[in-house]
Amino acid sequence: MAEVRIVLSGCMYSGNLGSVARAMKNMELTQLHLVQCQAQASDQDAKNMAVGAKDLLSRAQLHTSLDPAVADCKIVIGTSRRIRAQARNWLSPKQMKDLIAGLPPRTKVAFVFGNEESGLSNDELDKCQYILHLPTNPEFASLNLAASVLLVAYELYQLKSHKEPQPYRAISTGKLQELLDDWQETLTQIGFFRGANPVVLMRTFKTLLQRAGINEKESNFFRGICRKIRWLNDQSKK
Amino acid sequence: MAEVRIVLSGCMYSGNLGSVARAMKNMELTQLHLVQCQAQASDQDAKNMAVGAKDLLSRAQLHTSLDPAVADCKIVIGTSRRIRAQARNWLSPKQMKDLIAGLPPRTKVAFVFGNEESGLSNDELDKCQYILHLPTNPEFASLNLAASVLLVAYELYQLKSHKEPQPYRAISTGKLQELLDDWQETLTQIGFFRGANPVVLMRTFKTLLQRAGINEKESNFFRGICRKIRWLNDQSKK
Repeated sequence: MAEVRIVLSGCMYSGNLGSVARAMKNMELTQLHLVQCQAQASDQDAKNMAVGAKDLLSRAQLHTSLDPAVADCKIVIGTSRRIRAQARNWLSPKQMKDLIAGLPPRTKVAFVFGNEESGLSNDELDKCQYILHLPTNPEFASLNLAASVLLVAYELYQLKSHKEPQPYRAISTGKLQELLDDWQETLTQIGFFRGANPVVLMRTFKTLLQRAGINEKESNFFRGICRKIRWLNDQSKK
Repeated sequence: MAEVRIVLSGCMYSGNLGSVARAMKNMELTQLHLVQCQAQASDQDAKNMAVGAKDLLSRAQLHTSLDPAVADCKIVIGTSRRIRAQARNWLSPKQMKDLIAGLPPRTKVAFVFGNEESGLSNDELDKCQYILHLPTNPEFASLNLAASVLLVAYELYQLKSHKEPQPYRAISTGKLQELLDDWQETLTQIGFFRGANPVVLMRTFKTLLQRAGINEKESNFFRGICRKIRWLNDQSKK
């Protein structure tokens, strides 16, 4: 994975700075660089919004211009909401991810964000090889600064392998068939089918369980019910 | 596309409420429902953070419990950062998108978010068919409320077709060859190759232009230089 830093140029509000730190840490980014920011990492507003990410604020590196903040980076990517007509190497989030994924490990990459009111200046955009455009509502495109950083960090986080939740862990087809056989046998014993075709009726049950991707715990629950019904049925015959 | 509403249950801070409205409008969501929120849509903090999304605040629907806020929805999706051991239908963002994309048009879907401190209660989670888990840093998983809403809204926005920026609009292979032929002829005329193999040298140039995906404007720029060099060369022979 590339070594990514977030560079804020001219950030005005300390609350936003804190929110940026929180969003970064949520997505496992740690390097924060500040270029001529009015916002102060030591302000209470910044700390309040950073919550558990105050360590990023205290370790933020300060610069008096953009050049030294990105001098050691191989790739510098600006962010801008306007697709200007002028020549720029625009990237969509997907193109950005493909670019980053293809870099040698530990390649230094900077993402640069402009101030809250006017974004990156043309001079600043000129220092970026690529400009990332985050898709937003054309009628209301203006993302909050921390929101922009979050979306970039979130997209980058997708490049790391992390466990997808496996919500269903469906049982095997064989196990599902055992469950269905169990039920069919039980329902036959208690005279549920009354001459109707069990196959057709059981298909309704099967379809539901397949669609749900029934897991082992749920399957055990249904088989427990089966046993209870058979026991009741046996009892009723005594 | 499904008809998506955002339901905030017990939102505490008006600033967050405003940020939620902004994030929603950035991603073209418009329906905001508030269940027993301390945060007030009419507070100055909410309006300040909403910026151009104050209309969502003023149209927000208020409820005294979660049930009426989701009663007319076919699908109710909670959000939670913990992957609890207990039985829940967990969704990853990708699974969520697949689910929404597969719904009939105008299916009503609610995304439910808990309060800033403890998230959704178990009772609230019980009212959700699915629980979305947004992947985050396991060491600092706690997303700001507006950040969670933004990420859900951003993922949903990906389902809408919107123009990808086409940064390169590379010229065709044929046009590229014309450009290269033009240069090779010009460089031959001015004696650049000096007995070296033009094919090998031109390959260096070609590789660069292919990698860059040279567009028409850039190609015209290079062909303009070609013409100028030839003109100079002709002049020098007069």
